[in-house]
Amino acid sequence: MMKQKTIGLDLGGTFLKAGIIDRSGRISYRSKYTVDASSAERVFETIGQAVRECSIADADVAAIGMGIPGIFDQADQKIMNSPNLHCLDGRHLIELMQSVCPLPFLFDNDANCAAFGEFKAGAGSHDGPGGTLSPRSFILLTIGTGVGGGVILDGKLWHGARGYAGEPGHIVIDRKGKPCHCGGIGCLETLVSASAVVEAYKARGGKDVTCEEVAHVASHGDPLAIGAFEDVGRNLGIGLSVIINLLNPEMIALGGGVMGAGDFLLRPARAEASKRAFRESYLSTRIVIAALGNDAGMIGAGLMACEKLLGT
Amino acid sequence: MMKQKTIGLDLGGTFLKAGIIDRSGRISYRSKYTVDASSAERVFETIGQAVRECSIADADVAAIGMGIPGIFDQADQKIMNSPNLHCLDGRHLIELMQSVCPLPFLFDNDANCAAFGEFKAGAGSHDGPGGTLSPRSFILLTIGTGVGGGVILDGKLWHGARGYAGEPGHIVIDRKGKPCHCGGIGCLETLVSASAVVEAYKARGGKDVTCEEVAHVASHGDPLAIGAFEDVGRNLGIGLSVIINLLNPEMIALGGGVMGAGDFLLRPARAEASKRAFRESYLSTRIVIAALGNDAGMIGAGLMACEKLLGT
Repeated sequence: MMKQKTIGLDLGGTFLKAGIIDRSGRISYRSKYTVDASSAERVFETIGQAVRECSIADADVAAIGMGIPGIFDQADQKIMNSPNLHCLDGRHLIELMQSVCPLPFLFDNDANCAAFGEFKAGAGSHDGPGGTLSPRSFILLTIGTGVGGGVILDGKLWHGARGYAGEPGHIVIDRKGKPCHCGGIGCLETLVSASAVVEAYKARGGKDVTCEEVAHVASHGDPLAIGAFEDVGRNLGIGLSVIINLLNPEMIALGGGVMGAGDFLLRPARAEASKRAFRESYLSTRIVIAALGNDAGMIGAGLMACEKLLGT
Repeated sequence: MMKQKTIGLDLGGTFLKAGIIDRSGRISYRSKYTVDASSAERVFETIGQAVRECSIADADVAAIGMGIPGIFDQADQKIMNSPNLHCLDGRHLIELMQSVCPLPFLFDNDANCAAFGEFKAGAGSHDGPGGTLSPRSFILLTIGTGVGGGVILDGKLWHGARGYAGEPGHIVIDRKGKPCHCGGIGCLETLVSASAVVEAYKARGGKDVTCEEVAHVASHGDPLAIGAFEDVGRNLGIGLSVIINLLNPEMIALGGGVMGAGDFLLRPARAEASKRAFRESYLSTRIVIAALGNDAGMIGAGLMACEKLLGT
C-alpha cells in the first residue's frame, strides 16, 4: 500500500519542531528539539535526528517538508539571509539534507509553509469559514514580533521570480514613518506587531506591560487597552486594503500571537479596510482569524511534501 | 482556413478606439469613434458601428475583445462603477453586446487589457527587454491622470475573487496623506501622477505649467524640473517596493503619459525601490518602460479574445 504520511519540520533559530502529518493535515506524532545554531552541520545533525525518530515512530512516512526562516531562494534552493540562523546563509541545503536524510524532501520559507498549512488544513479548509466554498486565493498574515505571511493564488503558493514573494509585513504604509529592521521605512510591521500594541497602549497612558497583558485587560473592558488595539487594528486594516486592492483574494487569514486579541484587533482592521479598499473588492474578500496556531508551519510543510512529492 | 484576427476595442468616456489585431499583436486597421455617454444603448450603438466597419475592412476577424473603464465584475460580467461612463453602471453587458455584435466576444477592465497587451506584445514580449526569457509574472502601471494597471501571474491575468484585482494606484503608501478620489487616503496615485509632477515642480519653486512642460524643461537640464521628477519617482519607487515585496514579479512595466519623462522618473524610482524592497527580491524583478503607448489596451483586448475565444 502507498505510504501516506509525511514529516513536517519547522526550523527556527532556537527550536526545531517535527510532526508526522497525514493527508488531511492531522498531526499523529510530534517532538521538539533544541537547535545549536553554531554551524549548519550541527543544525542538520539535529534535523537528521528528528527524521530518524519520526521514521521510527511511524513507518508510514514517505517524504519530508521543512520550513526555514529567512530569505529563501527557491531557484537555487539556498538561504540568502536568515537573521536567526546565519550559519545557513549561502549554504546549499540540498547537500546538507541529503547527508542526514534518506527520504525525498523539499524546503520552503517557514511563513510560506504556515500559509500553505492554513490554506489546506486551517482557515481555508473545508472545516474553515469558507466551508465547501474553500478559497482558491488565500493570504496569511502572522502578527507577532513582526508580520510574516504567504500568498496562495489559484491554489498554489506564489513564489514569484525567485521565491522571495510573500512579505506582507514589508509593504510600506507610512512612507515617512519609522525605520523597519528590514532596512525600509514605515513597513506594515513597524505599525502592526506585539510591540506596536504595547507602544499604542503607552501612548494612550497605559503602563509598560506585555502585549498579552494589554489583551488581558482589554478583555476586562479597559478602554486604554481596547483603544490600543483599535490603533493597531486600523493600521492592520490599511495593510489589508493594499492587499485587497492589488489582489482581491478570496480570503485573508490573520494569525500569530497578537491575534489572540481576536475581535479587539479584527473589528477595527475590517472597518479600516472597508473604508480604504474599493467597496466591491473589500466585500468579496473574506477576512478571518487563522485556525492552526503555532502548528501551521509544521502542518503546511508536511502537506506541501505530500502534495508535491507523494502526489494525490 | 481558420480565422486568425480579432477586433480589439478600447472604450473610454470620450472615445472608442477599434483595431484589427493579428496573433502577434500587430494592428492592421484602426479607427476611432466619439462616444455618446448619455445612455448605455447609445454607447453600444457606437460599438456596433465599430464592429461592422472592422468586419468590412477585414473579413478575417472572428472574435472581439473590449476593455471597459471602471470597476468590472468578472463573475457577473457587469460594470459596478464607471466614473467616466456612469450610464453603464449595473448594466448587464452581455445582452447589450449581443444586440449589436454577431461575433463571440469578451470583456475586461481596460487597464487589465493594457497589461495583457504589454505582456504579450510589448515590454513582456520576445521583442521586449526580457527577450526569449519573457516573464511569466508581469505587472503594468500606467501613470497619467491617475495610476492604473494590471497583474499577470503565471502567464494569466489575475482577476482575484470577482475581477477587482489589479489596482496598483490604490495601494496606500502614506496612511495619513492626501485624500484620494477613490475615497481612500494616501494612495499611490495621490503622489504619482501628472498633477503630482506639477505640484512637485511648483513646490520646488517652478511655474504652474503642465506635466509635459515640466518634462520638456527637465530634458533641457532644468534642475527644478529634474527635482520634481525625482520627488515623484521616489514615491513611485515606494509603490514598486510594495509590489516587489508582496509578489516578487519577474517584470514591472511602467507606462502612461507621465512615463514620457523616461529616466527622469525611472532612475529615482529604481533607486528608491532598491532601498525599500528586500535586496534579493528587488534584484530579481526587472523594472522597465512599457512599449505600446496608448495602443496597449486595444491590442491587449484583441489578444485576449484571440487566446480565449479562438484558441492557440
